[in-house]
Amino acid sequence: MSSLKQKCTNIADNHLFTKIIIGLIVVNAILVGLETYPYFAVNYSDWIYIADTILLWVFTIEIIIRFIGSSSIRAFFRDPWNIFDFLIVASGHLLVGAHYVTVLRVLRVLRVLRAISVIPSLRKIVNALILTIPSMGTIMLLLSIFFYIYAVIGTMLYSSIAPEYFGTLHDSLLSLFQVITLESWASGVMRPILGQAPSSWIYFVTFIVIGAFVIINLFVGVIVNNVEEAAREEQPTPTDIKLEEVQKELKEIKELLEKKSR
Amino acid sequence: MSSLKQKCTNIADNHLFTKIIIGLIVVNAILVGLETYPYFAVNYSDWIYIADTILLWVFTIEIIIRFIGSSSIRAFFRDPWNIFDFLIVASGHLLVGAHYVTVLRVLRVLRVLRAISVIPSLRKIVNALILTIPSMGTIMLLLSIFFYIYAVIGTMLYSSIAPEYFGTLHDSLLSLFQVITLESWASGVMRPILGQAPSSWIYFVTFIVIGAFVIINLFVGVIVNNVEEAAREEQPTPTDIKLEEVQKELKEIKELLEKKSR
Amino acid sequence: MSSLKQKCTNIADNHLFTKIIIGLIVVNAILVGLETYPYFAVNYSDWIYIADTILLWVFTIEIIIRFIGSSSIRAFFRDPWNIFDFLIVASGHLLVGAHYVTVLRVLRVLRVLRAISVIPSLRKIVNALILTIPSMGTIMLLLSIFFYIYAVIGTMLYSSIAPEYFGTLHDSLLSLFQVITLESWASGVMRPILGQAPSSWIYFVTFIVIGAFVIINLFVGVIVNNVEEAAREEQPTPTDIKLEEVQKELKEIKELLEKKSR
Amino acid sequence: MSSLKQKCTNIADNHLFTKIIIGLIVVNAILVGLETYPYFAVNYSDWIYIADTILLWVFTIEIIIRFIGSSSIRAFFRDPWNIFDFLIVASGHLLVGAHYVTVLRVLRVLRVLRAISVIPSLRKIVNALILTIPSMGTIMLLLSIFFYIYAVIGTMLYSSIAPEYFGTLHDSLLSLFQVITLESWASGVMRPILGQAPSSWIYFVTFIVIGAFVIINLFVGVIVNNVEEAAREEQPTPTDIKLEEVQKELKEIKELLEKKSR
Repeated sequence: MSSLKQKCTNIADNHLFTKIIIGLIVVNAILVGLETYPYFAVNYSDWIYIADTILLWVFTIEIIIRFIGSSSIRAFFRDPWNIFDFLIVASGHLLVGAHYVTVLRVLRVLRVLRAISVIPSLRKIVNALILTIPSMGTIMLLLSIFFYIYAVIGTMLYSSIAPEYFGTLHDSLLSLFQVITLESWASGVMRPILGQAPSSWIYFVTFIVIGAFVIINLFVGVIVNNVEEAAREEQPTPTDIKLEEVQKELKEIKELLEKKSR
Repeated sequence: MSSLKQKCTNIADNHLFTKIIIGLIVVNAILVGLETYPYFAVNYSDWIYIADTILLWVFTIEIIIRFIGSSSIRAFFRDPWNIFDFLIVASGHLLVGAHYVTVLRVLRVLRVLRAISVIPSLRKIVNALILTIPSMGTIMLLLSIFFYIYAVIGTMLYSSIAPEYFGTLHDSLLSLFQVITLESWASGVMRPILGQAPSSWIYFVTFIVIGAFVIINLFVGVIVNNVEEAAREEQPTPTDIKLEEVQKELKEIKELLEKKSR
Repeated sequence: MSSLKQKCTNIADNHLFTKIIIGLIVVNAILVGLETYPYFAVNYSDWIYIADTILLWVFTIEIIIRFIGSSSIRAFFRDPWNIFDFLIVASGHLLVGAHYVTVLRVLRVLRVLRAISVIPSLRKIVNALILTIPSMGTIMLLLSIFFYIYAVIGTMLYSSIAPEYFGTLHDSLLSLFQVITLESWASGVMRPILGQAPSSWIYFVTFIVIGAFVIINLFVGVIVNNVEEAAREEQPTPTDIKLEEVQKELKEIKELLEKKSR
Repeated sequence: MSSLKQKCTNIADNHLFTKIIIGLIVVNAILVGLETYPYFAVNYSDWIYIADTILLWVFTIEIIIRFIGSSSIRAFFRDPWNIFDFLIVASGHLLVGAHYVTVLRVLRVLRVLRAISVIPSLRKIVNALILTIPSMGTIMLLLSIFFYIYAVIGTMLYSSIAPEYFGTLHDSLLSLFQVITLESWASGVMRPILGQAPSSWIYFVTFIVIGAFVIINLFVGVIVNNVEEAAREEQPTPTDIKLEEVQKELKEIKELLEKKSR
């Protein structure tokens, strides 16, 4: 049994094995792409079904190998990417008999995401992105409060003037998201309202200045900074390299001094 | 009396107390959200009114406790957030009998902003944002002069061609704000004018290059930099950590040298 | 004569004098603003004319005082802001009899720009902006070549399909400026062309990826960096402050060592 | 023969020679510009043809001179810009007899790109840009996977609701590119779909938050950082200058110490 485990570890760490899996993910991606063309979906539905089943089973075997090859069950499930892989594949088996055709097809598409868990450099960058989420907690909270207050006020003031944009609280939230991306905020949203509520420009201009100019830029700044910092740890800047040289020099000087004082 | 003060200070500093207040602010937020749905506003108006009155009184008691618990009246009102809390709650009492229904409802929504004054991390980030305002004075002044000159020229040249955008000076200011966000500036604003004033592209292109590409980016850069600097003071960059180590080493070397020279 | 010069220098350097001039520029700004409202322009045209003449003469006297107060004629005209002030005021006198009403009015608006030459902090930031222009020479050239090539190709390929956007070379240049600001580039410009030239998406997507994502961001990055660097020279970053302390410490250590070796 | 080679090297390195070539590229640019105006293209077609032939031969001679002047054939073709110049000119000769009028004209426009290979500062900045491509590999891959998955899901869900945007997989990819530039994403693309698929906002909002706010900003950040780093190597920041001074001081101190210990 231990030799099986050893074999599985060897296979899982093998470069060729990884490359084959990446290749199969690409095949899977092409398959789900072709399936969107009615011509293929109709004429080759059997072939697609067979290829899909084979892929599902190959991915299942791959995960079983990686599972056996890992040092322990806990070690395997401690890595969130393994859980992700497991869920993607397991749900493919569980739902196979079901009639949720759309769900099954979306699931097949999501298998393409496995590229992230298999290619190390992608995994690293996505990990860095996910790690920035907690550090953005405060800005996210600020953004949520800001959106909520403007959405409630917008619904209160403009629900009868522009029901398609501010009819209900969730309509308002979506419209404010549109406004914060600056898309048709004036031509589409504000100007029609402005005719009936001449002071509504205050609402939109303050929302854009605070939201789109300030908070969104803080949000983007935090994400980009954190990911760059993560990248920097591996590839230090010229400033950091020089500082390290300075630290080394200082250490040598100190040793020289201490030797003499002895 | 002194023991009451002590008790109030204890309560105000209590974590549970803060959490309860945050919880009530969330309840307040849900309430104003529900009120925007006509169904709730009509069928549950009595319940909303009762809950609202209770919330107002709880917040009043909270501020009284914090007021008594503070070292002095001056100390309490020196913190702008306390003034903000006081005004929000006091105006709730003052306007309760009035018929300004919309004002009252907006006031209830603004109570959600109290989350900022109660949650320390939010308070810190908003304080950092407010502190950047004076340092942006020059850029704001530059932006204002720039907007004003273009608005006056725009009104002079295009008030008869495009009265909906450049009819009056304040229309022009609002249109230029729309142009600086790049929203429909060409398809909506410039192209219809271009037909009658073929050289109007100079007006819009220079405004966008100077305003949207240069000044707005300076403005955003200053805000983001200042807030990041404020954040950095708490969490120094790797470069700063290394520099501090260098400073420590240098101090030790100096002491070694001075010891020997004695 | 020398005492007159001395007096003028004193007046020109006087804070109150500067404040009065700033005040008059604000009055001038309000005046040109009011003039855009037909009601004022018609009913108060005489008053506006009188106030305008007074302002022009006060500004003339101001510049004469500053001119006499400067150490030499060359010193006065070496500062581009003095040339700017001189031109603005002189052209006000030269064109006063002319019938170029619009030119005269625009000139009056441009007098508001004198705020920049009078307020030192504004002057500094605008100087910093102007100083970045030469360092952007290469990027500007790259951007020009890029625009020109795409404009020529666009005119060649789409002048008959979309004459309102790509009819002539200068139409194409303006349309490409619109596309680089991402305004209605798909809904307004590309999609109508796409129907007749199915591969036109290559033209637009490559233009946006290279132009709007890469070159414009380089352009903005250079401006913002340079202005921030100019600001940093006055207000060093925490990193720079620490580095200066390190340099001071090192100097002291060196002196200690040299003293001992003597 | 060696003296011919020497002569060619001298000519190729001559400043006047470079300036003449730049001048001819400008003439070429003006020519292709004029050709877009039907008036010139019709009335001066002979002159344009003659000028074009002369320019092609001058550029051919220029490249022959540079080719002979280079140390070896391999050295010449090792520089990608030489290959670029060679291909541009060679294809001009090869296609001259062909009937691909549009291809020939585009080729003539691309000759303007030779400005980049001839002007050193442009060459440097474009080289820096091209060198960032490999370091962006991971982000490009992430962006591609992200686009592909959303395009497949979009086609699956909305191909019947909005065939002009999500009819086929390549339509969806183009529409998603439009959405990521935030152009008419709500007014043009989402709102019409929203009527029939009320939960489609999830699709668009997640795509914009992840794609336009996060990944695109990472992409832009990497490019701008890399190009700035390349620029910094030539023009060090004040921080780097100070650090180099510190390193010099440390070296001196170390030498002082070592001298004494001898």
